Amino acid sequence: MKASLGANTILLPTPTMVVGTYDSSGRPNVMTAAWGGICCSVPPCVAVSLRKATYTYGNIVDKGAFTVSIPSELFVREVDYFGIVSGRDIDKFEVTGLTAVHSEVVNAPYVGEFPLVLECLVLHTFEIGLHTQFIGEILDVKIEDDMQDERGNPDPQKVLPCTYAPGAGAYYGLGKKLGKGFIVGREAYMGR
Amino acid sequence: MKASLGANTILLPTPTMVVGTYDSSGRPNVMTAAWGGICCSVPPCVAVSLRKATYTYGNIVDKGAFTVSIPSELFVREVDYFGIVSGRDIDKFEVTGLTAVHSEVVNAPYVGEFPLVLECLVLHTFEIGLHTQFIGEILDVKIEDDMQDERGNPDPQKVLPCTYAPGAGAYYGLGKKLGKGFIVGREAYMGR
Repeated sequence: MKASLGANTILLPTPTMVVGTYDSSGRPNVMTAAWGGICCSVPPCVAVSLRKATYTYGNIVDKGAFTVSIPSELFVREVDYFGIVSGRDIDKFEVTGLTAVHSEVVNAPYVGEFPLVLECLVLHTFEIGLHTQFIGEILDVKIEDDMQDERGNPDPQKVLPCTYAPGAGAYYGLGKKLGKGFIVGREAYMGR
Repeated sequence: MKASLGANTILLPTPTMVVGTYDSSGRPNVMTAAWGGICCSVPPCVAVSLRKATYTYGNIVDKGAFTVSIPSELFVREVDYFGIVSGRDIDKFEVTGLTAVHSEVVNAPYVGEFPLVLECLVLHTFEIGLHTQFIGEILDVKIEDDMQDERGNPDPQKVLPCTYAPGAGAYYGLGKKLGKGFIVGREAYMGR
């Protein structure tokens, strides 16, 4: 039987997107966001929702650009830290020892040690409520070259991305492969 | 070293959101969407991006409501099938034997066998490109009562949600718990 939890933001799972920006003095900053996801195929776009109070919000409004670095599970402590403190007060790259790499594509930095990076220009800004949604057009995707599969795509079992579970308030890794898209459903219900 | 993949929609991982709607004759339909995620905390909102060509698009425009059912990994074949065929041609509930349950909160059906459900009213509709983004205000969240943790929240390791990996084009389960949010980062970098 189902229990009601009321009006709540519990989707399982959410991504852990580390949003990279420069501030007005050119200092690189990162924050972790779980509110967002891919939102369009043509042009390829990713949505990231931020509160106006965040340092990253002002940076994106100012520069019109951001990156999304996807951490492997090895970096769960850094990912969590990036979501706790503000870049107004702290240089998060300095504290964690991670490397700010300048994107060659957009005016924003990404985390060099993280395996997967999306480099984005702001295409739209939508006001929803407490959160503002930035729609970033993805100009390039970068992946560590030893984490590509045989077709060149990011191999999820090499990237080992973090995920987040709202409600439970915990991070989880990626589990076993369940099946191929557009194959397992076809085989089960449309013959072979 | 990082390799460039060009402009692409590869975020790891994406959710597998099964979007439930009624058509103009009141027949329940579901489709699987990986483009979307939580987009606001107040009011609590989830974003789902759909192509205008989908049957679900017209249903949402018509009814102003939808549900998002989160499948457990046991249902990966049904999840994939729901993303392959159109409700214009096929009754997906009839073919799979799954149960359409009428939401008591919004004018939309959900999948009774899936553990976690978000019941949504359309708050905004944003045109982005090939995809239109529907922002649904989450009026209620429902969870199977034997999958709640000690605080009542959905226990990810009981729900066992599917995730999807664009690029690789495969479904993955949820992996091991990596740590608690707002705890592991604090302990590592801010003392105890």
